[in-house]
Amino acid sequence: MEDIKDILREVLEDIVPRDWEKEKLKRLSRRIIEELYSLIQEEGLEDLVEDIVQVGSTARDTHLRNDYDIDIFVRFKKGVEREVLKETILKVGRRAIENLGGNSWVEYAEHPYVSGRIGRYEIDIVPCYKIGWNEGIISAVDRTPLHNEFVKRVLKSKPLHNDIRLLKKFLKGIGIYGSDLKTKGFSGYLCELLVIHYGSFINTLKNAQRWKIGEKIVLDEIFEIYGIDRDYKFPEFDHPLVVYDPVDLKRNVAAALSRENFCKFIFYSRQFLENPSREYFYNYHRKVAERLSHRDRGALLTLRIDRDSSIVDDIIYPQMEKLQRSINKLLIENDFQILNCEVYANEEACYLSWEFLVWELPNVKVKVGPPVFNRRTGDFVKKHPRYFIRDCRVCAYVERRYRDVYQLFEDIVSGKLKNRIKHPKYVSPLNGRIYRDIFVDRYMSIVKYQNKGV
Amino acid sequence: MEDIKDILREVLEDIVPRDWEKEKLKRLSRRIIEELYSLIQEEGLEDLVEDIVQVGSTARDTHLRNDYDIDIFVRFKKGVEREVLKETILKVGRRAIENLGGNSWVEYAEHPYVSGRIGRYEIDIVPCYKIGWNEGIISAVDRTPLHNEFVKRVLKSKPLHNDIRLLKKFLKGIGIYGSDLKTKGFSGYLCELLVIHYGSFINTLKNAQRWKIGEKIVLDEIFEIYGIDRDYKFPEFDHPLVVYDPVDLKRNVAAALSRENFCKFIFYSRQFLENPSREYFYNYHRKVAERLSHRDRGALLTLRIDRDSSIVDDIIYPQMEKLQRSINKLLIENDFQILNCEVYANEEACYLSWEFLVWELPNVKVKVGPPVFNRRTGDFVKKHPRYFIRDCRVCAYVERRYRDVYQLFEDIVSGKLKNRIKHPKYVSPLNGRIYRDIFVDRYMSIVKYQNKGV
Repeated sequence: MEDIKDILREVLEDIVPRDWEKEKLKRLSRRIIEELYSLIQEEGLEDLVEDIVQVGSTARDTHLRNDYDIDIFVRFKKGVEREVLKETILKVGRRAIENLGGNSWVEYAEHPYVSGRIGRYEIDIVPCYKIGWNEGIISAVDRTPLHNEFVKRVLKSKPLHNDIRLLKKFLKGIGIYGSDLKTKGFSGYLCELLVIHYGSFINTLKNAQRWKIGEKIVLDEIFEIYGIDRDYKFPEFDHPLVVYDPVDLKRNVAAALSRENFCKFIFYSRQFLENPSREYFYNYHRKVAERLSHRDRGALLTLRIDRDSSIVDDIIYPQMEKLQRSINKLLIENDFQILNCEVYANEEACYLSWEFLVWELPNVKVKVGPPVFNRRTGDFVKKHPRYFIRDCRVCAYVERRYRDVYQLFEDIVSGKLKNRIKHPKYVSPLNGRIYRDIFVDRYMSIVKYQNKGV
Repeated sequence: MEDIKDILREVLEDIVPRDWEKEKLKRLSRRIIEELYSLIQEEGLEDLVEDIVQVGSTARDTHLRNDYDIDIFVRFKKGVEREVLKETILKVGRRAIENLGGNSWVEYAEHPYVSGRIGRYEIDIVPCYKIGWNEGIISAVDRTPLHNEFVKRVLKSKPLHNDIRLLKKFLKGIGIYGSDLKTKGFSGYLCELLVIHYGSFINTLKNAQRWKIGEKIVLDEIFEIYGIDRDYKFPEFDHPLVVYDPVDLKRNVAAALSRENFCKFIFYSRQFLENPSREYFYNYHRKVAERLSHRDRGALLTLRIDRDSSIVDDIIYPQMEKLQRSINKLLIENDFQILNCEVYANEEACYLSWEFLVWELPNVKVKVGPPVFNRRTGDFVKKHPRYFIRDCRVCAYVERRYRDVYQLFEDIVSGKLKNRIKHPKYVSPLNGRIYRDIFVDRYMSIVKYQNKGV
């Protein structure tokens, strides 16, 4: 067994940015901010703006090597109207980037913001309101500069930067880094809070071994900052992991984390602690998927639905999952058995895939009717002439609506089952095409299976 | 809809023995009893015997036409040893029948008794002890003469003979008449008590509509005979129907009735009351079986096991059922799905039959391991390398032990699964042969099925 310290040292050599890289990035950030200030002054808009700050992991020195993201937040005064916010950022943001020799364009989230590229650096210039700690937000991203303040302040006295990098890299390796709705994993900020709370990367993994569903974490700093008692009543959340946000106690930083990924973290942490190895940090989830792929398979089926590429993953993934869940319900009602299912989208299309343990059935089904004690058995037997008594109920042999899953999927794409399944706006099964013997796996891409005479 | 009175009159015309038939039977019974008395006197054994009585439905005038059974009980004094009982009955019983021009032989139950045939009459001469009401039995059949006394006494003032005949015929028609371990239905005595309790055939069917599992019935006569209060604490039984025996309050006359047949009675009673028809009284169960047989089928399989013809149904049937239950458990563990199963035995062989909804599966199975929170996940993943996380547990894809039911049955008859299933003494799967595409139905005899390309 390799020594855990050696492993972590090796990984760190790989993931900590070199000093000159950090210096270069810092310099560019400063120049963008200066440029923004002078453009705002030029436009005579300085009264609207409180300050301009660099945020994100590159600002707090917790980013991984080869992360060239520069996030600049322009904080407006609370009174400023949203329209003005928007106009201002579009006016000065694009010019700032282009004055520094880059390209820029406009992106859209809750409100528009400016994105751009200068050399290898990816720049976001985002407007928000300057709010105080534990104060309600006005626009969705108002907390971000506060997160930055909090983490930077704590890390000044506790140099945990590299432990945070290790946790991020470990989570990336096992495929659960990112709080987007596709990944449903750990955000960068959540990694920072966990390492701050447990004191190191290794201690975070060790402490996760005691986690249970609904685990609650309150950082010591929260008690200090807010001067509240240990018996303070924090709000309840129905999430597998609850980490109270030091800048807003009504918010769970781990809200996006799925139950499954919560469990994966506990499990792979234990695996790593018991058998330390570099491989967990490097695309380990692909190895897992590959290892799982060497096995016999049930019948495979993929439903491919054209994608409007202007709709982002954060909208597409929840809709794919919603559609798959509603189809699964129908499959189970029809006595088919699902071994495995998954959603995946690339730029052109959505892929909803299934592997079946049971995908075809004889044309007979036992329909369970009322208990024999019930006076309405007469209605049941009138409708179903092949009745008999089983388990104190009238039952009947009836014909099946679907003898195989393919028939059922044909009726899904033709719209015959419109009232039985969801039709999400951007992932409509009516645009679907059915592919037999194909499963599109998120990591392994397409799996083709030769159905061996089952 | 036919008038219910007309139907019952027609059925009664069919099932009530003619007066001259009853007279002839009564005369023969009397002659057998007289012959037995004189032979006992001849042998000088009169001190051992209390009395000789005719019992059974022919004695109480509740038998169906074409029932030519004459049951004679020789009641010995309590002190007499079992050996003497046995010797005496063999000595005088066979001679009595043969003196009257019949053939006789010895049958074996708890102790031997004499059977014989005189013309069309089937005669049993059975020894027992004379016991008092609500007294413990010494040999298994000691209660029978008391049942006779009770029913005859009650029917003297309530002429319900033909209502009892109707109930018996109705139960025969729907296939649940008889308390043997193959039928698990209603005994003749139980029919008598029910009609006595509810006052008529139709009232019995009507009252059954209010029955629930665990229904308790205490005849009014019990309170009169024993002088007990309505709040008397009768013993509890875990049976679907409890009818306290007027001659022994610790006994449930309906003990042999299965849950399924209890339910069938309630259900078919309602069917009959709502749509009266003669057909319920005449092999209705065969019509039910035939109606059910016109449908598509799953894969069929029959296990045929040679039968030692000297072993009676009351031993063979429970053993077949026990074996089938233990095989079913194994089938379900291996993810196969049973649509229907049944046991049937003729003189040569036992037939255990199955119809499957799912009978073959791809060679992959999800094995569910410990929760991720459990420290022993390490052992599981060492054993099962294709592991993954699902529903907070470590799971793994593993190969199947059995890809189809035929492989599993091969291992059953070869003895490889000896430790996993029961091996009843007279129905051993080691002597089994497997037949594909065949189902042996109790009523329909053999069903062959052409598996249509599933």
